[in-house]
Amino acid sequence: MDLVAAVSAQRELATSLFDQLRRDGLDDPGVSRDPYGQGEQRAHATATEVARQLGLRIERDEAANLYMTLPGRDAAAKRVIVGSHLDSVPHGGNFDGAAGVVAGLVAVAALQRAGITLNNDVTVMGIRAEESIWFQVSYIGSRSALGTLPDGALEVRRIDTGRTLAEHIAECGGDPDALRAGARFLDPAHLAAYLELHIEQAPSLVEAKRQVAICTGIPGNFRYPDARIEGSHDHVGLPRRFRRDAAMAAAEFALALDHLWEEHEARDVPMACTLGRFHTDPAVHGLTIVPGSFHFSLDVRAHDEAVLAELDHRVDAIIASIEQHRGVRFHRGTKARAAVGQVDPTIRSALERCAADLGIPVLLLGSPASHDAAAFAAAGVPMGMIFVRNENGSHNPREAMEIDDFMAGAALLTQYLVAAYASR
Amino acid sequence: MDLVAAVSAQRELATSLFDQLRRDGLDDPGVSRDPYGQGEQRAHATATEVARQLGLRIERDEAANLYMTLPGRDAAAKRVIVGSHLDSVPHGGNFDGAAGVVAGLVAVAALQRAGITLNNDVTVMGIRAEESIWFQVSYIGSRSALGTLPDGALEVRRIDTGRTLAEHIAECGGDPDALRAGARFLDPAHLAAYLELHIEQAPSLVEAKRQVAICTGIPGNFRYPDARIEGSHDHVGLPRRFRRDAAMAAAEFALALDHLWEEHEARDVPMACTLGRFHTDPAVHGLTIVPGSFHFSLDVRAHDEAVLAELDHRVDAIIASIEQHRGVRFHRGTKARAAVGQVDPTIRSALERCAADLGIPVLLLGSPASHDAAAFAAAGVPMGMIFVRNENGSHNPREAMEIDDFMAGAALLTQYLVAAYASR
Repeated sequence: MDLVAAVSAQRELATSLFDQLRRDGLDDPGVSRDPYGQGEQRAHATATEVARQLGLRIERDEAANLYMTLPGRDAAAKRVIVGSHLDSVPHGGNFDGAAGVVAGLVAVAALQRAGITLNNDVTVMGIRAEESIWFQVSYIGSRSALGTLPDGALEVRRIDTGRTLAEHIAECGGDPDALRAGARFLDPAHLAAYLELHIEQAPSLVEAKRQVAICTGIPGNFRYPDARIEGSHDHVGLPRRFRRDAAMAAAEFALALDHLWEEHEARDVPMACTLGRFHTDPAVHGLTIVPGSFHFSLDVRAHDEAVLAELDHRVDAIIASIEQHRGVRFHRGTKARAAVGQVDPTIRSALERCAADLGIPVLLLGSPASHDAAAFAAAGVPMGMIFVRNENGSHNPREAMEIDDFMAGAALLTQYLVAAYASR
Repeated sequence: MDLVAAVSAQRELATSLFDQLRRDGLDDPGVSRDPYGQGEQRAHATATEVARQLGLRIERDEAANLYMTLPGRDAAAKRVIVGSHLDSVPHGGNFDGAAGVVAGLVAVAALQRAGITLNNDVTVMGIRAEESIWFQVSYIGSRSALGTLPDGALEVRRIDTGRTLAEHIAECGGDPDALRAGARFLDPAHLAAYLELHIEQAPSLVEAKRQVAICTGIPGNFRYPDARIEGSHDHVGLPRRFRRDAAMAAAEFALALDHLWEEHEARDVPMACTLGRFHTDPAVHGLTIVPGSFHFSLDVRAHDEAVLAELDHRVDAIIASIEQHRGVRFHRGTKARAAVGQVDPTIRSALERCAADLGIPVLLLGSPASHDAAAFAAAGVPMGMIFVRNENGSHNPREAMEIDDFMAGAALLTQYLVAAYASR
């Protein structure tokens, strides 16, 4: 059977796996696969069962990441990782993350069906805890595997349970003490590449009428997960000149960021900024009280470290100006950073050639979102990504990925594996 | 004893009464005299005890308002009301409201001490539930007394207890069924005047270096107590052109209102607007989610009905524009209105003459805040107000009224009562 037919033959595997994952995570509206919790655990069990049926070698590391390996001819050759995460945001969609793991399983199943043995081991990796909304730390699973998890991350508490990451990892069969002692399951020097398929998180592919995109880079970011503004709580009748209105200061901050973005957009410089939490204090706010305190989270991202550094300065300047003329104080809290994720140019051009061979027209797309792939790139592993069309964005229950588009992405992934690793 | 000395002699009464009221309402930080709840009940008990010691006639109406009357010579003459409210916002200051009741008690005690019997009954009124943050209905106590409480208000629920106003009134010894049947304790046709002393809720008197102001009017308002904006919850990486960010729409709305206010300020047209609650949805917001829904309350106030009508149109136009270019929908919810409260010109000029007689330099001041006095004015009762200097605004624990300033206001109030009602 030729490779394209062998991939097509896995359509049923893909749809039944997506259906099972949806049932596993159902939390109306949408799915909640909480990292190191019930939702993610069920998804790991489902993926493990499929790997068992395919006869893959199954391993877990100290952070309870899942590795499902199709052995290659040369046990000494560097391992190829095909992965993505199995957790989701609360009430998210079924495909964000999971599609990459399903694509990896489809690819190895297609290789088996086509009777192709690659030179290198191919490991499908089910990564833990990518969604930073829960622990407010990026790339927990992938950085634990690579030994690059930042100091203190294991003591961070999940925002809903209040329990630490270390406690959660231990509950899921991991070994936080080993992680603390510096354990790493993956040595970057022994990895050939990291490939990740992911649904697109914006409708750029819908707009461009393409099924699949090849990633040109992953944005870096800086974040203030828990910032606040202090002004003065006052009576609703207080004249404007006396006010130190924290909500009005926040509104001015938000709009200044929006103008900054508009300006970058006009110059075609990709960036994004998001005030995901943006709120007066529910303990004291009310119809007749001028808000004296305000809370927000900020995520600013760009594809170029220089742009990011410039944005950092601009944010500081905006804050200084607002503090000065509105008589408020910004307390930024902890600042988190993630480096820009560079796509390996050899992988990117190989993916373009494979798409051409398959007759799949692709879009070249800078990822608007962060991905585990960036953690691999930061550790020095050659990295590439494939995006699949998705109409309604992600992190919401209205994700709309068509199975035809997914299968096109999976075919491109499989074709690339054969092109790059069939013989060496 | 002359009148000025008789007022001064009540300084101890005032300070001990304020101290007791603070102890009654203590709810660190500040005081909470929750309307038709424990806090307000204790304040009513304290005022009642003082009235009993002064030998005043004590009555309560169907809404549990408190009336403490010093009889005049002519039982057929119209009654003069000197009142204010005894409730507070949560964690508010000790003087907002209570100062007016204490001033009334000081005035009648001074009249007794000076041996002056007025022609008319003077009733000190302890008014219920003026602070609209609790039930989101204005002037509950005063409008219940006047029979002008709007339809449906008795069924409104207190935001913290979830119980209806009717239930709360019944718990405090009132009779909601009688109110439903149209009971009114006060007939405007039988009232000579309504006088209210209140702390200033802005530092205009501090700025002007005056102890006391005479009110020139009370603003009317329109309000949206529970409005929201619906956009689309999306992934943090979504490009700007695809977003329907409800928080960004809210920020633009807030800043447009602020500009509108700035513009009125430049033309010396008094108004105010306040977004007291202004928040993303705590059930779904997060660091990595573009906010798809946003909640806010809006209070817009002005001293002129024409200005208020124009502001109403401008708010509609701002909303329409934001809906159009940000792809969001505003759901305004219930709209509440309160009419502008006109100060009686005869009372105002009499107060000015009395201040001159006492050698107290006064500021003429449009009230930035709403007061029960507006409910009396709306019912056709001649109304006047005195403001007392207060450094740190009100609706917060940092209220700073000096007892000297309060005593100057109380002296002006007492002088006025004598000037207007000593003989007829």
